[in-house]
Parts: sequence; C-alpha cells; structure tokens
Amino acid sequence: MESLKPYDTVEVKIKKNSKTTTISGIVMPKEEDDAKNEICIRMENGYKMGLILDKNTTIKKTGHVKETPTTENNPNKSPNKNNQKILFISTGGTIASKIDYKTGGVIAKFTARELEEKVPQLKEIAQPEAKTIFSEMSENLTPKHWKIIAKEIALNINRNDIAGIILMHGTDTLGYTASALSLILKDIGKPVCVVGAQRSSDRGSSDTFMNLICASHVAVGNFAGVFCVMHANTDDNYCSAIIGTRARKMHSSRRDAFKSINENPIAFIYPNGKIKNITNSKKRDNNLKTRIAGNFDSDVMLIKTYPGLNPSIIDFAIENSVKGIVIEGTGLGHIPTAGKNNFLPHLKKCAKLKIPVIMTTQTVYGRTNPNVYSAARYIRETGVIYVEDCISETAYVKLRWVLSQTKDIKEIENLMTKNIAGEISERSDIIEDDCN
Amino acid sequence: MESLKPYDTVEVKIKKNSKTTTISGIVMPKEEDDAKNEICIRMENGYKMGLILDKNTTIKKTGHVKETPTTENNPNKSPNKNNQKILFISTGGTIASKIDYKTGGVIAKFTARELEEKVPQLKEIAQPEAKTIFSEMSENLTPKHWKIIAKEIALNINRNDIAGIILMHGTDTLGYTASALSLILKDIGKPVCVVGAQRSSDRGSSDTFMNLICASHVAVGNFAGVFCVMHANTDDNYCSAIIGTRARKMHSSRRDAFKSINENPIAFIYPNGKIKNITNSKKRDNNLKTRIAGNFDSDVMLIKTYPGLNPSIIDFAIENSVKGIVIEGTGLGHIPTAGKNNFLPHLKKCAKLKIPVIMTTQTVYGRTNPNVYSAARYIRETGVIYVEDCISETAYVKLRWVLSQTKDIKEIENLMTKNIAGEISERSDIIEDDCN
Repeated sequence: MESLKPYDTVEVKIKKNSKTTTISGIVMPKEEDDAKNEICIRMENGYKMGLILDKNTTIKKTGHVKETPTTENNPNKSPNKNNQKILFISTGGTIASKIDYKTGGVIAKFTARELEEKVPQLKEIAQPEAKTIFSEMSENLTPKHWKIIAKEIALNINRNDIAGIILMHGTDTLGYTASALSLILKDIGKPVCVVGAQRSSDRGSSDTFMNLICASHVAVGNFAGVFCVMHANTDDNYCSAIIGTRARKMHSSRRDAFKSINENPIAFIYPNGKIKNITNSKKRDNNLKTRIAGNFDSDVMLIKTYPGLNPSIIDFAIENSVKGIVIEGTGLGHIPTAGKNNFLPHLKKCAKLKIPVIMTTQTVYGRTNPNVYSAARYIRETGVIYVEDCISETAYVKLRWVLSQTKDIKEIENLMTKNIAGEISERSDIIEDDCN
Repeated sequence: MESLKPYDTVEVKIKKNSKTTTISGIVMPKEEDDAKNEICIRMENGYKMGLILDKNTTIKKTGHVKETPTTENNPNKSPNKNNQKILFISTGGTIASKIDYKTGGVIAKFTARELEEKVPQLKEIAQPEAKTIFSEMSENLTPKHWKIIAKEIALNINRNDIAGIILMHGTDTLGYTASALSLILKDIGKPVCVVGAQRSSDRGSSDTFMNLICASHVAVGNFAGVFCVMHANTDDNYCSAIIGTRARKMHSSRRDAFKSINENPIAFIYPNGKIKNITNSKKRDNNLKTRIAGNFDSDVMLIKTYPGLNPSIIDFAIENSVKGIVIEGTGLGHIPTAGKNNFLPHLKKCAKLKIPVIMTTQTVYGRTNPNVYSAARYIRETGVIYVEDCISETAYVKLRWVLSQTKDIKEIENLMTKNIAGEISERSDIIEDDCN
C-alpha cells in the first residue's frame, strides 16, 4: 500500500468470497483511536466507511482534493450565503455516539470542529455552531428534558445569525420529543429539525451524515416549524421531513424507521440540496419571535388496551393522582363495555373526578370515531374525548401540555380536538378509502 | 321500472351530479326488512350493492340466470369436489352484522341458508355449515373466549366431512385471537381462517363477501394452520393469508387493515380461486388429529412504555398477582435505566418473585436486541426475556399460554424465545437492511 495523505482521492477494491467491490472516495484525516491499518473513506453520497487494509483490499490513489476551507479560517470566502449559522444541539443518542472499542461503551463527543471534520459538506450549507446539553440515550429522557430542550431552542432561535436549529436526539423517543417541541414552541418562524441516527457514526452504513446534511438543507430552507428529518427509504438517496407531531418510529433498526402517520411528509430532501415539496407547510418568517408557552409537568398515564386488561388500571391511575389518561383502544377507539372487564363504570369515575380521558387507537394508522358502533357511543357518553387521527404518542404529549394551559374540562376537550401543530387533520366527508 | 325477479341479470344506470355510473349484476332475493323501492344487486366481483330505486336510477333487465343449486337440494350434482364442507363459526363483529335501520343497532344473524343467500359463490367452493357461538364485538372478547373458540374448532376440525373452518370475528382484537388459536391448537392439519370485515355487509363497499370467498378457497386449499384472510390492498382484487401470530390491525377503517408484521403473507388469494403462494407453509394433512394444549388463564399484564411512565406500574402488576409481564419498550427493546424512572430495581423485584418479564418493541416492525446498547444489557441481566421479532400482542397471548405449560422460569424463557407457531423468525447473520 502506498502512503496516503488526508484528502487524497482513492479507489479501493475489496475482495470477498469471489466478488470484488470497488469504492471511490476521499481519504479522511486519521483519528487518534484509529488503528494503524485502518482508513476512513468519504464516499460521494456523504457516507464515510471505515476500512481495514488487509490482503483482500487494494487501494489506489487517483488524485487529491483541497480541504474545503472552513468559514473560521477563511472569513471572507464563506461558502454559504449570508454567513448564516445552524445551531446543532446534541442531547445524546446514537447520532452523537461512537463506540469506544477499548471499553465497549458509547461515548458522545460533538463540538463544531468535530462536526466539520466528520461532515465536511455541512460547511458548504452553513456555519455550524455546536452545543451539547446532555448525553442521554433517549429512552431515559422525560418530559422535564423536553422543557430544557425547548428552552435551549427558544434561547437561540431568535438570534439574527441563526438560520435554523438541528436537534440531535436518540431515536427511541424522538417522536415524543418532536411532538413536545411542536406544541410548546409558539410563533416559530424558522425550521427546527429533530434528527437521529439508527447506526452510530463509526459504522460505514451510518445514517448520521446524510441525515445531518439533509437536515441542514431544511434548516436553511424556507420552512418554519418542527420536523423530523431522517432517511425516507432503505436506499441512501434522500430524507423526508415529517411534521413533528406525525413522526413515529416504525422499525427497531432500519434507517428509514420514521414514518409520517396519517399525513404526507412535507418534503423530500436530497443530499445535494434539492428539495421536493410534498405538502404545504408554514414558510420561514425570521421576524417572528419564538417563545415557550406552557410545560409538561402534569402527570398523565397512557394505557394500551388488550383482551383481558383489568379496568382496575384506571383506579391505579386515579390513586396515583394522575391529571389525565390517554387510552390506546382498539379499532376506531374501543374498549370493553361488557363483561367483567367493562370499563364504563371506571370511566364514569374519571368523569366525576374531572380527570380527562382521551381515546386513540393502537392500529397506529387511521382515525378514531365514536359514531360507528353503539358501544363507542356509550364510551363517548361518559365524556371520553376522541381525538380524530392524532396518534397516541402525540395525544399523550399533548394532554400533558394542554393541562398546563387549562384545568377546565370543556376547554381541555376543545384543545384536544383542535389542531394545534399538525397533529389533527380535517375529516373528509368521504371516507378516503371507501370504494363507493 | 319493469317488474324484476330474483336472479334476473340487470344493468343499472345511476345519475349523480352530471355523471352516470353503470353497474351490471344479478338481482338478489328480497329480504324481509328491505324497503319496497330497495333492490340488491350482486356484481361480478362478488360484492353486493343495495340500491334505492329513485328518479336518478334506471334499471334494465338483460337476462336471467338459474339459481345455483345448493348441494342440499341437488345431492348428486354437488358443484364442489368431494362434497366437502366448510364450517363457518361466527363470534360476532362487523362481518356478522347488519345495521337494523329501525333501531340503529347492529344485529347478527348467520345461518348456512343466509350465508348461501348472501354469498352464493360459496356453494361453488364447498357446502357451508354455520354455527353462531356468540355475538360480540371483538373488543369485548377475553382470553376465556379464545378457549371457547378453540374448543369449538377442535370439536369439528377432525370431522371427515370438514375441509376447513372459517371463524368470523370482529376486527378489533382479531389478531389476538388468531395468535391464541395458533398456539393452543396442536397438530393442526387443515386450514382455519380467521376472517373479519371492516364494513358491514349491508354496505356496497363491504369487504365481507370477498373476504369470505377468498377464505373459502384457503379453507379447501392445501394449507394447514391458522391464517387471517382479508383484503390485501385498497383495491378489491385479492386477499392475503397471514400467519395467525403475525396478523396485526394496522388501520382503524381501511379494508386492508391487516398487515403481516416482520414476515410475508403466506399467499395471495383471488376471488376466482387463483392462489399465489408467497412463502412456504405447512401443507394439509387430513389425518392429523387436532387437539387443544393448554389455556390462557394466567393473568399477564402488557405495558406500553413512554417518557414519564412511572415504574410503579410494575409494583401495581405485582400487587395484582399477575403471573407475567410483557413490556412494549422503545426501539430495540429499551426502558429507562437511569433517573427517577429507572426500571431496573423494579425488574429485579420481578426476578426475585419469579415473575417472567418479556421485552417487545412499540415500533411494531423490527426485532428487539439487547446486545447493541449497554443499557439494554443491564435490562437483560435482570432476567428480562427478549423475544426477537415477535410482536407485542402475540407475546402477550403467548406468555398467557406458556404459563399454562410450565411455571419454571428457565422453561418459560426457552418457550418464549422459541418459534412455536410462526411468531419468531430466525435472525439472519446480516442485518437485512444494512447497506454494507
């Protein structure tokens, strides 16, 4: 192997079984913990691949490219328009992780410098500014964290130099956080992209790079609101921007895990900056002053139902002084209304205690409707609030937020059944999929 | 309008706004509760449509067909091979429902005669025999009902004259029941089709007819096992047969609500009897003697997690003497392991009390895996059982069943992580969607 320098362009041939794969790319600078025979190649699609140079690998230098100057050391030659900045806020998760091969643990390290090194294309879009506010895998985040994140965003998004914000977040509960931010951030005139990764950035197949590049295009683009920006499909060609209240993790491991439920994504974004708008969304208004309204402090319980569920779960919620309940029912929003698991008496108890009960569906897709079957009418008559096509995770987050706005049961119902941040779409007169 | 007789072939033109729709079909015999100006047409695709004959409707007789003779009144001219029967067991649900326009309620009425009248094509496939064991919307069904249904199936499926069984069931909890039957029915050598409908049979867009026709083709076909047979897509052209343990209702209202999770359907079935096999499945063996093994009596709790869930829910389960817990975690099978919502001490308590705890994922799609992140390793170390790509609803049903087979925690783990009825597929060495 000839001696290679950072930013040499190379062609690598890897033999495996009887097949040979050829990869072209740019050699990345070595990292401290890289092994001697390890090399990292950035490919044309933005992915980086770590390679072990052994007897099955041949590498050929094909040229050399100049390192893209950073805006820091070339202030007069800013590659991005208006010298705009994107603030990257890291909360932890796979996207901020790199496996430490020495301990087997996962470490988070994210400064602007590291971002620039890892994803050099970002500098062509905007100047990155980075801040780590915590380093948690997202299953450990709580509604308290949502508020801290919202505060950090509100603190920075009104700055004149900030075009948009990218929140780096674990994928496990990314949908919940995106919903929370969508509801608590008012008068939002710039894009906030919530971005995760399903593969850590030290893996060749990591989605970190393309997700960050596409999210950066959204962050400087003509959008306003909170969006989840991640892989749109299993190919590595583009990302989708999903309304924060509609984003749901629908696969445990695939890079295109996030789906837009009951609504189209607002746009598809290609790494080269091409944006294909799918649905209308609010446009950027840099003059809007974003503020925080409310909190998520009220304790709410989310209950998924199933055959055999003892309705005493409702009593448990009441005994634990919850301020609201979201029931993830079956079908159009059903729970047992007969037999020994009859929920009706327990729902009436909630009504008496003025504990709002919200109905969603465990089918994930589709709308709830209390008017099709008579049993659901009895449920509705106890005061249970059906929230149309709002997904249960968002309904849970929203109820916590609504309880910070009002304690009046009628007003709670009004807010829960009203579209606040894209979480409820209008019911069309015709059932969309009915063949008549 | 000229006077029409049952089994006249007709062409109907319906004017609506400025458009005219033409429908061809066969006039069905009148039902007692049909209005005078009401007529029911069976179209070529098997659907029946109720029409109100008003000034916008013109109807033209084009011929007459002979009523297909039933095997009962023409024993020597049986249109189906070997004079085989299909037993239709009705438990209620939309498929067994017809809205009573007088009361607004839903009534269930299903005799073999009514089946023949409503879906005359069935007689060309097999002689129907019908039995109603209860009339419940499926959200009211409990694990006790699963056992009753299983007993009814076991009582009849070994009969020489029965080719297969069709279970008519509400869609809300159809997936749970299909899982239960898949596990409790042993040595099953014939097909058991669990069939629901998303639109009641008095609606023109009802899926009842095509679902029953396609399920009948499966019931006399070369299959063995429990399958959910319903619309495969939003068009009305074919159904899919999904392994009972993989069927999940994924939409609250669409006719193609049932999806095969983490596994392909075994076959697509066309109303004309054409069957396209997709994956290998067990083949019919009429000599097998089906029996029931076990029950679902042990109380198990299914808990969906979310940010802010108080781990005291585990203590509630323990206090209620549950015999097992299924946790629908996030991502690869995660729950909080830090902060005030740390579940680890509560999981250790379960281990001490020998209460098995099973981990699934709320992403619906994908496999759990405790070996990717260190936090999950801590969860695993408390004894939590990760059940691969088994969906949470099936894991819940299965744990109830496994507890009727053994109380030994090691044996419970063995059974829960072993594929019994198609609910767990082998992990491939390569992550299927990884681009490397």
